[in-house]
Amino acid sequence: MATTVKRVLIYGGKGALGSACVTYFKGKQYWVGSIDLAPNEMADANILVKPDASWTDQETHVLGEIETLMSGNKLDAVFCVAGGWAGGSAAAKAFIKNADMMWKQSVWTSSISAAISAKHLKEGGVLTLPGAMPALEGTPGMIGYGMAKAAIHQLVKSLACDKSGMPANALTVAILPMTLDTPMNRKFMSEADFTTWTPLEFVAELFNKWMDGTDRPANGSLMKLVTKDSITDVTAAC
Amino acid sequence: MATTVKRVLIYGGKGALGSACVTYFKGKQYWVGSIDLAPNEMADANILVKPDASWTDQETHVLGEIETLMSGNKLDAVFCVAGGWAGGSAAAKAFIKNADMMWKQSVWTSSISAAISAKHLKEGGVLTLPGAMPALEGTPGMIGYGMAKAAIHQLVKSLACDKSGMPANALTVAILPMTLDTPMNRKFMSEADFTTWTPLEFVAELFNKWMDGTDRPANGSLMKLVTKDSITDVTAAC
Repeated sequence: MATTVKRVLIYGGKGALGSACVTYFKGKQYWVGSIDLAPNEMADANILVKPDASWTDQETHVLGEIETLMSGNKLDAVFCVAGGWAGGSAAAKAFIKNADMMWKQSVWTSSISAAISAKHLKEGGVLTLPGAMPALEGTPGMIGYGMAKAAIHQLVKSLACDKSGMPANALTVAILPMTLDTPMNRKFMSEADFTTWTPLEFVAELFNKWMDGTDRPANGSLMKLVTKDSITDVTAAC
Repeated sequence: MATTVKRVLIYGGKGALGSACVTYFKGKQYWVGSIDLAPNEMADANILVKPDASWTDQETHVLGEIETLMSGNKLDAVFCVAGGWAGGSAAAKAFIKNADMMWKQSVWTSSISAAISAKHLKEGGVLTLPGAMPALEGTPGMIGYGMAKAAIHQLVKSLACDKSGMPANALTVAILPMTLDTPMNRKFMSEADFTTWTPLEFVAELFNKWMDGTDRPANGSLMKLVTKDSITDVTAAC
């Protein structure tokens, strides 16, 4: 008898966290699609996005590709882990340039993930978006970053409401990690205490739990990931 | 003896609220600059923005024009009242298109207003940005609008922090009106109860009070404007 294959889509599947997710879900024999600027060779399918294309052009391209890939199947989950970091106060020369980059990297990807989910996520499926703990308050030294993340937090709340366009009983949450244990972070903060960083595999496993219905948070939650002595606590910010 | 002329800049000075502000401040003999797509003939100076230009190009153009206009003078206040409205759930065809428009109309203008203020606002000056009450919660039927306004709310909090780039003792607040009593709203909601709408002159006068130091809210406040029986209450949301 044919078993039903679980299908997950990773937006940002070539990044540090995205790659960890692709590897983790392939290890579970799921069908894994990756959306990114470059292909992840481990994924079953890759959708490549042109960074110079407009927001609507990226949306049209990605939705068109997924339409073809899915051919009537539904996704069990969409995990958007795309994003980046750039600083800048209102007085910084790069303030607007960096705000523009943060918006494109985080909010374009998150909102296109929402559009994908509205069309292709199954009932009761999971959508996670990339939030950030600092954006719960003011972020004077990284204003563009804070605005983009605050927009994502509000997007999560919108998608959790009735008539948001999401499928019935879907779960939309943001993850708000403090510091992820990525190779880049190890390189640039080599003196830091790594036992306070959240391992990427922990996040992938958490996503899988939520898909399976284990410890599923309330719809619309902003879930803080706080790691201490290599133990990660997952708690709702609001 | 020469009196010091007060200088205010209205971002969106050709819109309904912006025009009311230009008229009000000209009535007080202030120097009034307007930034918009079209000139406001009552303003002392107009900076015209090309809607097709990128975020950074608009910033460069506006900051360059202001540099010339100010020639060393400082602004008493920057009132950003630009923005618009468009709906769309995650399932709407126009979701991303409208989110893009909302971002450009509200967040580009607000962040450029912040950049202007960092450079040209005097110590103790006022910057107001256009917030929205519904964006304090989820906004499932107008997701792009909610994201843009949530970003502005967070921007206000960032600008109120130390080291945001704003001048000393400056006040940054967002106004969160329910419904403004504009000609457009009267046209499209002609059956509504206008005594629950906030008059534009009330907002202009409120701005002037804050400039003068009267009933000045805490820095970083989101100020709700709620009108009932033609009386408007102004209270901080957080």
